[in-house]
Amino acid sequence: MTATPSRDLTVTGVRLTPVLVADPPLLNTQGVHQPYTPRLIVEVVTADGITGLGETYGDTKYLELARPLADRLVGHRVDDLNRLFAGADEVAVDAARVSGQVDVGGLRGVQTAGKLRLSVLSALEVACLDALGKSLGLPVHALLGGKVRDAVEYSAYLFYKWAEHPEGVAAEKDDWGAAVDPAGVVEQARRFTERYGFTSFKLKGGVFPPEEEIAAVRALAAAFPGHPLRLDPNGAWSVETSLKVAEKLGDVLEYLEDPALGTPAMAEVAAGTDVPLATNMCVTTFAEIKEAFTRDAVQVVLSDHHYWGGLRNTQHLAAICRTFGVDVSMHSNTHLGISLAAMTHVASTVPDLHHACDSHYPWQSEDVLTERMTFEDGTVRVSDAPGLGVELDRDRLAFLHRRWLDDDGALRDRDDAAAMRIADPDWVRPAVPRW
Amino acid sequence: MTATPSRDLTVTGVRLTPVLVADPPLLNTQGVHQPYTPRLIVEVVTADGITGLGETYGDTKYLELARPLADRLVGHRVDDLNRLFAGADEVAVDAARVSGQVDVGGLRGVQTAGKLRLSVLSALEVACLDALGKSLGLPVHALLGGKVRDAVEYSAYLFYKWAEHPEGVAAEKDDWGAAVDPAGVVEQARRFTERYGFTSFKLKGGVFPPEEEIAAVRALAAAFPGHPLRLDPNGAWSVETSLKVAEKLGDVLEYLEDPALGTPAMAEVAAGTDVPLATNMCVTTFAEIKEAFTRDAVQVVLSDHHYWGGLRNTQHLAAICRTFGVDVSMHSNTHLGISLAAMTHVASTVPDLHHACDSHYPWQSEDVLTERMTFEDGTVRVSDAPGLGVELDRDRLAFLHRRWLDDDGALRDRDDAAAMRIADPDWVRPAVPRW
Repeated sequence: MTATPSRDLTVTGVRLTPVLVADPPLLNTQGVHQPYTPRLIVEVVTADGITGLGETYGDTKYLELARPLADRLVGHRVDDLNRLFAGADEVAVDAARVSGQVDVGGLRGVQTAGKLRLSVLSALEVACLDALGKSLGLPVHALLGGKVRDAVEYSAYLFYKWAEHPEGVAAEKDDWGAAVDPAGVVEQARRFTERYGFTSFKLKGGVFPPEEEIAAVRALAAAFPGHPLRLDPNGAWSVETSLKVAEKLGDVLEYLEDPALGTPAMAEVAAGTDVPLATNMCVTTFAEIKEAFTRDAVQVVLSDHHYWGGLRNTQHLAAICRTFGVDVSMHSNTHLGISLAAMTHVASTVPDLHHACDSHYPWQSEDVLTERMTFEDGTVRVSDAPGLGVELDRDRLAFLHRRWLDDDGALRDRDDAAAMRIADPDWVRPAVPRW
Repeated sequence: MTATPSRDLTVTGVRLTPVLVADPPLLNTQGVHQPYTPRLIVEVVTADGITGLGETYGDTKYLELARPLADRLVGHRVDDLNRLFAGADEVAVDAARVSGQVDVGGLRGVQTAGKLRLSVLSALEVACLDALGKSLGLPVHALLGGKVRDAVEYSAYLFYKWAEHPEGVAAEKDDWGAAVDPAGVVEQARRFTERYGFTSFKLKGGVFPPEEEIAAVRALAAAFPGHPLRLDPNGAWSVETSLKVAEKLGDVLEYLEDPALGTPAMAEVAAGTDVPLATNMCVTTFAEIKEAFTRDAVQVVLSDHHYWGGLRNTQHLAAICRTFGVDVSMHSNTHLGISLAAMTHVASTVPDLHHACDSHYPWQSEDVLTERMTFEDGTVRVSDAPGLGVELDRDRLAFLHRRWLDDDGALRDRDDAAAMRIADPDWVRPAVPRW
């Protein structure tokens, strides 16, 4: 019998490093991505000197919670996760951060104190799992019951985009060019397939009138016949418009994502079409599940492990979906390689994953890793190395943190409408439904 | 940084040992417990020579599945659990074992192929977790995200019982005496509190006409004022009778357990009373959840990790219940210390456990452990030793297995009606509802 080594899994410190990372001028119904977007990098250090990595949203409201939640972790063990979550509501959330409903400026669904806490806890959980895996010599997926597949499929995340950020705005260049019409969207999709081998395509819509976006999806269908296609206007449409789009694209859509805002509207759309509806806006917390599932409002929940509260909660969500005959897949917002690694580990453990996961990662030219994560044939290989299987590049982290430090505050809270106003001073957040 | 030891977690063999263990003459609506009851003891052995322990039902239908399912595990790793479950439906189940509905002779709910497989997989999963924990030097609860409490509360499981098994039947003696009326039930409850410190009481009903069982619960309420009380007739009552009992005992019941059979009847009862309804009969598989939860048929699901498919599935079930505002607690059938240890580990990780768990263990005078599990102040301490924290007594295992080998088949499949016919040759399984 192998002797059990003595090991001290106690957390002795948590480093929190906000960064600003480059983001191309991607369009959505709220506006356009700012040239840099905030993320928070979390490092959990154990008594043995092992460091675990996590990552989450970096806007101020998350940073406010990160320090007190991280402080609660110090002195506890990296395998003591349930207690971390069970006691988290002791950490107060600024009431101004909580609307109880979908923030009109947000693309991430309802704003609640619990969801804000979970968004931070997720990074702590992932960092603990990374540290635990490294301590035990096990990959994170093994800590989650083991992978059921060796590679996780991702989809090409197509955006309407400008060639460059508005003139005069400090920004990194990208080589993707513009995409503001069907031809541009198809060209972008081709590049995605050439570079990464993706075979599923998601178009972020809600940017142009529905007829133009229908034409773009039709152009994709013609260019990539038989490939799974998705369109996501982030709740920009009325029920009537949603049904019209569903009718016109029903023969080529894998699913329609958040056509209308909120469970009642989604339920109405769902009742009127056979096109499956996916969401990462009307079901983003456990509290929202009961109404949505009993009303058959959604057929696919796109989990975001950040706001669902980590990898184990994502597994719970998958079990709930399976139980209620709802599919599960994964949402993605701007994120770096730590989160892509985390998504890949948990996705590899979910038995019935029938849709390629979203990932924004190809749009992120910057990362904090020594080696970028890579896509092959549209998939990410599941790492069997201890922990997440990624390594922090401290110089890159310092560089991106310096950018955050140097910012005057304008970019520390993502604001797509503010970015749009630089190009169009009259821009206001569109009322919903926009069409 | 601690060097990661090389460790081989590959399963090299699985030992399956059916045993017969002594059971007192406990009464239920189907009949009476036989003097010995079958259990299956599972030992998973790794390449490093580490042995993990599991336990499940031992009736023939489980044994039939245990060997092919165990064979699938050999060559895989003890941390490779999701794959074990994902591929289990390749193992065929004898169609004669599957009714698709609640077996009239059964007290464990619906009979499906999936549930039979899960009942066996649960023992393999627990054994793998025990082996993994021993390999890593971590308790099983840490492999489940860590305990949120240091002790798990159990309830006194009161039975109507005879002083002895019928004359002429080979059996072990017990010192509990008879309990066939309110005074006997109260006397039994006193013994439970004196010996184990339990403060909640569950009476297995469905044995005598409802008025007599109401009187017994009233007597308990008088003897133990303010203590949580439960009554479980195993679906023996009509909706009308259930509502009558609920009305008469509403002021003293923590919950009423499976008063009527099946989700439609339970939903009708639930709609007519404020007394919470618990179940381990109408919701015993993930497939049964949607109907029961959307109809508000049950307020407490009593999980049995054996038939829900192990400790991680029990955590999923708890997450589903939490999401739908349904409480969760634990069911227990005749089981030994391995399963009590497993129940205690998983129960320690469930954040919102508001009811004391059931355990039949005090009725089992025999076990396969070197040291029996113990109750203190009605609780079992959560072990922090590696794995489950229990040790197999090979002599005891061999002795109880010898009893199984020597049996002519009469006791290898639990049959409470057959046992009752020894005392009452005219006994037939009562039609449901019985009252």
